[in-house]
Amino acid sequence: MKSIKKQRMLTGDRPTGNLHLGHYAGSLKSRIKMQEEYDCFIMVADVQALTDNFTNPEKVKKNVFEVVVDNLSAGLDPEKITYFIQSEISSIAELTVFFSNLVTVSDLQRNPTVKNEIQEKGHVFKDGVVNLGFLAYPVSQSADIAFCKAEIVPVGKDQKPMIEQARRIYKKFNNLYDEVFPLPKGVFTEVSKLNGLDGRKMSKSLDNAIFLSDSLEVIKNKIMSSKTDTDNTIKYDTENKPEISNLIMYYQIVTGEPIEKIENKFSNNTSYKIFKEDLIKKINLFLEPMRKRKEYYIKNPDIVWSLLKIGNERANKEGQKTMIEVKKAMKIYYK
Amino acid sequence: MKSIKKQRMLTGDRPTGNLHLGHYAGSLKSRIKMQEEYDCFIMVADVQALTDNFTNPEKVKKNVFEVVVDNLSAGLDPEKITYFIQSEISSIAELTVFFSNLVTVSDLQRNPTVKNEIQEKGHVFKDGVVNLGFLAYPVSQSADIAFCKAEIVPVGKDQKPMIEQARRIYKKFNNLYDEVFPLPKGVFTEVSKLNGLDGRKMSKSLDNAIFLSDSLEVIKNKIMSSKTDTDNTIKYDTENKPEISNLIMYYQIVTGEPIEKIENKFSNNTSYKIFKEDLIKKINLFLEPMRKRKEYYIKNPDIVWSLLKIGNERANKEGQKTMIEVKKAMKIYYK
Repeated sequence: MKSIKKQRMLTGDRPTGNLHLGHYAGSLKSRIKMQEEYDCFIMVADVQALTDNFTNPEKVKKNVFEVVVDNLSAGLDPEKITYFIQSEISSIAELTVFFSNLVTVSDLQRNPTVKNEIQEKGHVFKDGVVNLGFLAYPVSQSADIAFCKAEIVPVGKDQKPMIEQARRIYKKFNNLYDEVFPLPKGVFTEVSKLNGLDGRKMSKSLDNAIFLSDSLEVIKNKIMSSKTDTDNTIKYDTENKPEISNLIMYYQIVTGEPIEKIENKFSNNTSYKIFKEDLIKKINLFLEPMRKRKEYYIKNPDIVWSLLKIGNERANKEGQKTMIEVKKAMKIYYK
Repeated sequence: MKSIKKQRMLTGDRPTGNLHLGHYAGSLKSRIKMQEEYDCFIMVADVQALTDNFTNPEKVKKNVFEVVVDNLSAGLDPEKITYFIQSEISSIAELTVFFSNLVTVSDLQRNPTVKNEIQEKGHVFKDGVVNLGFLAYPVSQSADIAFCKAEIVPVGKDQKPMIEQARRIYKKFNNLYDEVFPLPKGVFTEVSKLNGLDGRKMSKSLDNAIFLSDSLEVIKNKIMSSKTDTDNTIKYDTENKPEISNLIMYYQIVTGEPIEKIENKFSNNTSYKIFKEDLIKKINLFLEPMRKRKEYYIKNPDIVWSLLKIGNERANKEGQKTMIEVKKAMKIYYK
């Protein structure tokens, strides 16, 4: 039997907080599937996190550990995935510098993702005064993908302009120097914006999230106190019944059951209270193995750090291989 | 006797062409003095050269070798100087990325050196469309200085805003994270703009330079055909007698004699022809040992490449030491 080399996938997490159900629906769930199909690289983007947390670095370090633990806890197989820390991979910084010659300042200023994020982060960038690192974010992201020649990049739909920018950079490099970089395919996740308990986008900073590490007690409080309308009808209708639709969505995520099936199950003689109690049970069932895995890794932090060490080594090796090709193409390979 | 650790000096050359008398007067001459006082690092700025030669990389590689040979030929002691190639030092790229979070885009756009160079390089940046690498040039230069914690930086007067920008970045880093970087002192060279044979600034691209590698024959042609006025008076007077003043300046550089002494020497019974013939002799005497050294290194390129190898290793070791301090300060040191 012929062995077919798996395509490489690159994705990443900003180590900016505990993972929640929104992360699960938006990325972890598909990662669990993708780890079978692809050679998966998962980057902990500590340098990127510093671009808007640069006054709070303590936070970044602590969360590097946690974000890997959360990934492992969610069921990602440590043997199938290469975890690495962005700041440990020097070839990413080197490519960022090279790539900055292939993109104009006005191109970056026009990038819709950059524009949006600058607006969203108004509290960090006072009066629209943006630091260079933030403007260069798409270039740095292009380097993240390129250093290991990833071909598959799962991202939220809002990140589409980033992938397009990256592809333009690789095309320009390949044309100018030599065919080094594959043009990666963006895999766009559908449910990139799960709502939180208050109906706004689920987010740690909005205090409306169900975390993958929440205890049964915490889940009970969060779900039982969540708002509903008063007609006790379990019907998925985001327009007219947004609150209960939201809870149905959680139910769907944690059980994998189709929405219609959920509606049918609760179509007779049901109150929101009964639905909520069942939802709590199902969320708990879903989170139980995650919590156990998490407990295990929290007790054995050395395992996590040594996974990261191995991952960093593998990533650096890939990066060094790429840099030799890059430097040969650019005619600055002096060995 | 107590041994005092020498301060580190960092300077660099863009590998964009043969060195000429302007380079000698502007930097090589002072380097020869400084190599006794300081721990000298000389960087061959190949990455920087790519920021405006990115469509002509062949040129960059060839000149890396030549620029080091020219430095050695000019009398810089290979044992006293650490030569290294910018693209081989990954900590420079890493610091460039970190530093870009400490400087705003508008700060860079206001930088007078950047503004000037963008104007000068109008042919490269059509319609003022500047690539990110060029805008980030002061940040990259800050990284060049910082990776080896250089304290003395000799530069042309026009580069003063660059040094000031670098100092602002280090201050910000030191305040935000921890006291890692010394604030370097710019040493501003006086004669940064020697005129060429046509009266404009001496420059390879203007075809008006006396190269350190010019043969006697070439020098003869260049000097004998150089313009003068007609009164045959050897008088340094840049306003009224710019052409002969220019030649007197060359005489001064190659002999080290004060201008007054030169004027006196030729005050009686002299024609420009006699002066020019003597100048040719003096330039030749000055260049003769340089040409011999150059011949030696051209015949033995391995010596040059192994000097660069040793230099790269030393520079990388310094860079790695600095990066450990930097990452500890930024709380992203995971070892």
